[in-house]
Amino acid sequence: MSTPLLPREKVFRDPVHNYIHVRYRVILDLINTPEFQRLRRIKQLGVASLVFQGAEHSRFTHSLGVYEITREICDNFAANYPHEWDDSQRLVALCAALLHDIGHGPYSHTFEHIFATDHEAITRRILLDESTAVNRILRAVAPDFPAKVASVIDHTYPNPQVVQMISSQIDADRMDYLLRDAYNTGTNYGLFDLTRILRVMRPYRDGIAFDANGMHAVEDYIVSRFQMYQQIYFHPVSRGMEVILGHLLRRAKVLYEAGRFDSGFNPRLLIPFFEHRFDLQDYLRLDDGVLNTYFTYWLDYPDVILRDFADRFLSRRPLKSVTFTDQTAHLLPRLRELVAQAGFDPTYYTAENDSFDLPYDAYDPSSANPKTQIEIMQLDGSLEELSTQSQLVHALRGKMTGDKRFYFPKVMLSQQGDLFAPVYQQFQHYLLNGALIAPQ
Amino acid sequence: MSTPLLPREKVFRDPVHNYIHVRYRVILDLINTPEFQRLRRIKQLGVASLVFQGAEHSRFTHSLGVYEITREICDNFAANYPHEWDDSQRLVALCAALLHDIGHGPYSHTFEHIFATDHEAITRRILLDESTAVNRILRAVAPDFPAKVASVIDHTYPNPQVVQMISSQIDADRMDYLLRDAYNTGTNYGLFDLTRILRVMRPYRDGIAFDANGMHAVEDYIVSRFQMYQQIYFHPVSRGMEVILGHLLRRAKVLYEAGRFDSGFNPRLLIPFFEHRFDLQDYLRLDDGVLNTYFTYWLDYPDVILRDFADRFLSRRPLKSVTFTDQTAHLLPRLRELVAQAGFDPTYYTAENDSFDLPYDAYDPSSANPKTQIEIMQLDGSLEELSTQSQLVHALRGKMTGDKRFYFPKVMLSQQGDLFAPVYQQFQHYLLNGALIAPQ
Amino acid sequence: MSTPLLPREKVFRDPVHNYIHVRYRVILDLINTPEFQRLRRIKQLGVASLVFQGAEHSRFTHSLGVYEITREICDNFAANYPHEWDDSQRLVALCAALLHDIGHGPYSHTFEHIFATDHEAITRRILLDESTAVNRILRAVAPDFPAKVASVIDHTYPNPQVVQMISSQIDADRMDYLLRDAYNTGTNYGLFDLTRILRVMRPYRDGIAFDANGMHAVEDYIVSRFQMYQQIYFHPVSRGMEVILGHLLRRAKVLYEAGRFDSGFNPRLLIPFFEHRFDLQDYLRLDDGVLNTYFTYWLDYPDVILRDFADRFLSRRPLKSVTFTDQTAHLLPRLRELVAQAGFDPTYYTAENDSFDLPYDAYDPSSANPKTQIEIMQLDGSLEELSTQSQLVHALRGKMTGDKRFYFPKVMLSQQGDLFAPVYQQFQHYLLNGALIAPQ
Amino acid sequence: MSTPLLPREKVFRDPVHNYIHVRYRVILDLINTPEFQRLRRIKQLGVASLVFQGAEHSRFTHSLGVYEITREICDNFAANYPHEWDDSQRLVALCAALLHDIGHGPYSHTFEHIFATDHEAITRRILLDESTAVNRILRAVAPDFPAKVASVIDHTYPNPQVVQMISSQIDADRMDYLLRDAYNTGTNYGLFDLTRILRVMRPYRDGIAFDANGMHAVEDYIVSRFQMYQQIYFHPVSRGMEVILGHLLRRAKVLYEAGRFDSGFNPRLLIPFFEHRFDLQDYLRLDDGVLNTYFTYWLDYPDVILRDFADRFLSRRPLKSVTFTDQTAHLLPRLRELVAQAGFDPTYYTAENDSFDLPYDAYDPSSANPKTQIEIMQLDGSLEELSTQSQLVHALRGKMTGDKRFYFPKVMLSQQGDLFAPVYQQFQHYLLNGALIAPQ
Repeated sequence: MSTPLLPREKVFRDPVHNYIHVRYRVILDLINTPEFQRLRRIKQLGVASLVFQGAEHSRFTHSLGVYEITREICDNFAANYPHEWDDSQRLVALCAALLHDIGHGPYSHTFEHIFATDHEAITRRILLDESTAVNRILRAVAPDFPAKVASVIDHTYPNPQVVQMISSQIDADRMDYLLRDAYNTGTNYGLFDLTRILRVMRPYRDGIAFDANGMHAVEDYIVSRFQMYQQIYFHPVSRGMEVILGHLLRRAKVLYEAGRFDSGFNPRLLIPFFEHRFDLQDYLRLDDGVLNTYFTYWLDYPDVILRDFADRFLSRRPLKSVTFTDQTAHLLPRLRELVAQAGFDPTYYTAENDSFDLPYDAYDPSSANPKTQIEIMQLDGSLEELSTQSQLVHALRGKMTGDKRFYFPKVMLSQQGDLFAPVYQQFQHYLLNGALIAPQ
Repeated sequence: MSTPLLPREKVFRDPVHNYIHVRYRVILDLINTPEFQRLRRIKQLGVASLVFQGAEHSRFTHSLGVYEITREICDNFAANYPHEWDDSQRLVALCAALLHDIGHGPYSHTFEHIFATDHEAITRRILLDESTAVNRILRAVAPDFPAKVASVIDHTYPNPQVVQMISSQIDADRMDYLLRDAYNTGTNYGLFDLTRILRVMRPYRDGIAFDANGMHAVEDYIVSRFQMYQQIYFHPVSRGMEVILGHLLRRAKVLYEAGRFDSGFNPRLLIPFFEHRFDLQDYLRLDDGVLNTYFTYWLDYPDVILRDFADRFLSRRPLKSVTFTDQTAHLLPRLRELVAQAGFDPTYYTAENDSFDLPYDAYDPSSANPKTQIEIMQLDGSLEELSTQSQLVHALRGKMTGDKRFYFPKVMLSQQGDLFAPVYQQFQHYLLNGALIAPQ
Repeated sequence: MSTPLLPREKVFRDPVHNYIHVRYRVILDLINTPEFQRLRRIKQLGVASLVFQGAEHSRFTHSLGVYEITREICDNFAANYPHEWDDSQRLVALCAALLHDIGHGPYSHTFEHIFATDHEAITRRILLDESTAVNRILRAVAPDFPAKVASVIDHTYPNPQVVQMISSQIDADRMDYLLRDAYNTGTNYGLFDLTRILRVMRPYRDGIAFDANGMHAVEDYIVSRFQMYQQIYFHPVSRGMEVILGHLLRRAKVLYEAGRFDSGFNPRLLIPFFEHRFDLQDYLRLDDGVLNTYFTYWLDYPDVILRDFADRFLSRRPLKSVTFTDQTAHLLPRLRELVAQAGFDPTYYTAENDSFDLPYDAYDPSSANPKTQIEIMQLDGSLEELSTQSQLVHALRGKMTGDKRFYFPKVMLSQQGDLFAPVYQQFQHYLLNGALIAPQ
Repeated sequence: MSTPLLPREKVFRDPVHNYIHVRYRVILDLINTPEFQRLRRIKQLGVASLVFQGAEHSRFTHSLGVYEITREICDNFAANYPHEWDDSQRLVALCAALLHDIGHGPYSHTFEHIFATDHEAITRRILLDESTAVNRILRAVAPDFPAKVASVIDHTYPNPQVVQMISSQIDADRMDYLLRDAYNTGTNYGLFDLTRILRVMRPYRDGIAFDANGMHAVEDYIVSRFQMYQQIYFHPVSRGMEVILGHLLRRAKVLYEAGRFDSGFNPRLLIPFFEHRFDLQDYLRLDDGVLNTYFTYWLDYPDVILRDFADRFLSRRPLKSVTFTDQTAHLLPRLRELVAQAGFDPTYYTAENDSFDLPYDAYDPSSANPKTQIEIMQLDGSLEELSTQSQLVHALRGKMTGDKRFYFPKVMLSQQGDLFAPVYQQFQHYLLNGALIAPQ
């Protein structure tokens, strides 16, 4: 395995970590690949940047941040736990950290939903397909190195310490995005004491544990994560913009499949996806700007729904929402009916959307997707699961949190009289304090 | 003049100012126009974001920041200087602050240079042309209101206080971009004490002055501004990417004019600019993503120079540079010759680029473009020009700072032997410590 | 009532709030009283500054901070809720905020415990006794003004909004000390979004409520408060230094009462407290430095226990501790016996110390000391108690948190052999992972 | 030389450096000495904390900070410059950094001036005198180790790298106090990019240089230093409080020497200093609180001047000031005369005070006290002096900056009529905009 060092450490200035430090030539070469540079053109938070205006950062800066945290973990392990940590694992860990998001496309979750792409599968292909610059660079380290890096990312790598660095309930990925999203949105909910957590992390045979004297820093991280989900990632307006985007792409697909796209509005780089026959190169041509460019084309398109949704997306005109529950869900057909009476096609102009998260869970072997629990190492070396040590984490453990929302056009909330005023009034009878209710 | 308030103040969370506060409906309506939302898709720092990776913020967030600072200035003036400040000027000031950058296009300076557009003229048109949403909203305030706002932006508005808020050597625009660029690049060079400066600003008959007890905060702002120019805005690599972009657009234009664009590579939204017949609507369709999309198209284009520069831009492969002076400029033809000998067309693969700034100047009526000097108000009400009060500002006053650089392909610095090794060696004889020298 | 303004607003620079703004002459005059300036010489966190070394700030800066937060609340109420808030209440609120801690003495809780002083009673006397500069200044506002300010501080003032600003589960006092202690200890546990909380506070008939859209900021404050208690205020070493201080003062009192203080070690300013006959002037002469000065005297005192504890306090040599529970408390006599066998008087060299806190509670009329619960105002104006809206607060509500600790000399943990090695070993059998256990 | 490591790294939380990391037992033992713990009771900024209220931090926290910066420099040198840096120098550097201020007493400069003490000589004695705990711990490392540490502090140590770390124009001491004073005063003038400076520092044969690519960070440090002096350290009110303190101590000494101190007001711990016969133990008993305690005693003293100055100091009632120059100095006798006419003894109630600083200087062998200039290392390894590289530093180089002030009682500025109104008016004729002028 050949891993030459740079003649001199290279640094990238970073607002969250101050500097990103690069020592290995292979890391610098990976950063300079077209596949990685493309991440500059994909926003980390997708449509949420339309709600939290400062959150304009890309997957590129996030990926460098995950690399940097991993590098600091490795430094700590090598300096303080030379017997528990095998430092020859460092390069595979760093590469996996840097590349873990390389397969993401524009507006990832919505795009995947409509076009049935899979960013994890694409990550594997970028790592393993000989056509990519990333593969060429990894291959030069060792022939089996690309596969090793890929196996860290899909959790099958044999060293559990390396896997948990990149992917666990408290990993370099989550720690970077919480801090970075907090920094850029301007909230302080996502702040936690990264320095302290890095100091109390320690490798042991079966993975990574945390010293007992750092329990409160870990607890604070879990609470911060919970708060970021509640307040940023699940924000109702942001989900309203996701609904807009999903319906816009769906409408375009329907029109394309119906043969109704004329050549002037040709979304050249999207065609392979409309036709379900894209290859890796097609995928790597996409970014946020490409999609936005076609949305701009569609502002002039004859179809009124496509045009309206393109404009809604580009000019940020979301649908509005109320929460509903299992008890009030039976009222939704009536609301859709009223939206239709007000002149909107409810297929496009209404939506249900739910967002739920499990802030923390202990290991449960019977679960479909068991989580690696967070272990706190006691003074005598024994391990205790985090929620047995922290009252706050105990309160959050194993509980799904989030809500369900029904989306509809803003005009339905109008107080002013027009032709449809009586419809609006009936609609508003079902709403109280932002929630759906059964009217008296 | 009709200026209704919102039923409830609306806030936008912002990482620099914490919150942006909006009280007037007209401000909220302007923010929601397509023309203003488009600024989300144009990066504030253009290609510099390719060097300072965190600097991914847009002209949208900057414009809100300029608005917010102006709002705070008006609040201060209204509360503390009711006799010197006419608060009926507030709305025109706020609108001008919000809209001062509305005419910017993607990668503004480079684009303007190649396509002879003029963002100031376009700003006027967006404000004054009845086709825009911005004009419609301003017009509803009063028929002459669009023209008033435009006159603030072009410095012809009769109230000098309003003009200086938006445009002077220490205005809301500069203060926001210095703080915001510093925050996002992660430097602290651009930090200064905004709160203090806002507190010591005071209106007087002929404009805005600063209390003597705030002199040091103003001084610190000038020094910060100087440092940001030296270290961020004039960064050699960033200028190297600007060179790439300029040559890429120029090559595309040459090819188009030569009739060599086939329809498959049709840059639909750029055509009106290639043909010098764009209208306002064409301009408003452009953003960073649109240009990047066409650069992605051109990755497959037959012309080798266009293809290489598109790839250099998207994958961030800048030209390298050395400084030169009037004394060494005569050596440049020789360097260009060597670049040509190494196989590169020097028209595209070399460039001269200079960046100079005047950090601060006192008023000089004989200057082509006299600057509004910064006035420090003494305890007895008399005014003294800033550089008479501050040793640091005195040192910077009236002095242009910056450098001139010659750009060339990185391979010219190669130490390794290939066919052109002797050419590279000759080239390198002209360089020492990053500067051009006459070899011995 | 006479409340002249200063000719010009006066500001104090502050690291937490940036600036403290003073408009009323009476506020500036109160700050300049000897009684208030004395707070500069009393540390806010007392002995905790010996553990969190940066936490060297005084009750003076904290008191200014409480004033500033109250001022901002009043500004918000006056600007946005002119019908719900009577702005003639502003001055009494500001004075109460500034003076709420004026009766504190050095190392307050420990000192009060030993000498049976009562800082709340003393606060009243400073406000109401005609001998003080504070009273003279308040009296000049209106004859009944001192009593009004005092009644705000002891919660009997008729306006519940004013009382809750200064004293409730989310008041200006708590908000300032959490932020300030976090800033100076260098933790970020105590950070929360003060700006947001101030914006969503709103007066209503029966007190202060919080807008529903600010619920998460209030939740975050409660969690921050919980974490600061767990990690800073209840820190075991800090409590160990409190034990040292308490035993030191107790020993001095015992010796004094036994007539064993000779004149050379005369703690002149403490005598009135040893003799239970202090007057207000005696109390106002005390500060941290006065106590420390006498501790320095006692370094040379013949009594070995007094001398040792004086040195332990000044040179920061705390007792060590383990946690215990009701289940293991029966073992404490055995531990004390072993400490005695190792040559230490257990009256002074051991201690039990517990620290418990109720992070948040809803109003419970049957409680001995019912708390003003935090009310969240819904869109339709109805109020909901905080823990019904927040899962995290629900988890903390009404639950006491903290621990009990047993303190003893560090040498008991010694691993090295000396005369008492067998005693130490027996002692250590009772300890595991920092807790008291029944040995097998 | 015996330098055992702790079984586990110990950390101290610090608001400026986040954590202070201690690996060597000798460092921990030094921190725990009475001589070092005493620094907790001496404020870093002395009376300036009466003007910048947040600046309540002690020499203890500053000393830990200097240690931490030195530790980081050594880590960098050891990791990146193993051939240029001899890591066996690390311990002597760390000890010198930690202990460089150990000889400071309370209100150092003023106290030294009145009592002719010398903190540098006392530092040497604390290190070298066998009676101290510090000496005992250093001696255990090696018999000549105390003298080595002392020689670093007094610049005679043979390794110039170690000396420059602790004492040069850009050393660990200055870097910590600028950052810490800025943090605690709440200014951002003193901020600079410590991380960057530490990264570009590099040892060479004759000392420490800085990489050319870090020139701007070094420049920014010089500018920050200049600004902190102008705005914090030279603040007129702070100097006014120093005048109060100096005159207070002088008056006490005069009274003592005149035999006018009765036993009830006995400043026990100050007596050795009044009598010029203090030993090291006497000195180590002093701290800020001890002095303040005696000032409190003196509030009741019969001498009216002593009493007034004690009260002025404790209650923060400074003298006022105006600037004067060599051109206006001839007017000072007249001002003193007017102060005397208004009933004040000008010996105590007036003062001249000047504060001048040399922000940066190049090496000048002809200077009385030549400075180690800052060297910037070019790409080819040659060294260039900083001011040849930076326009800003060039402007500051070799220029003394500061001012001279005349201090007098505030009542001299009174606008209101009393018995002395005509005297005040005459006095005020000499003042304009805070400066002394020759009246027309």
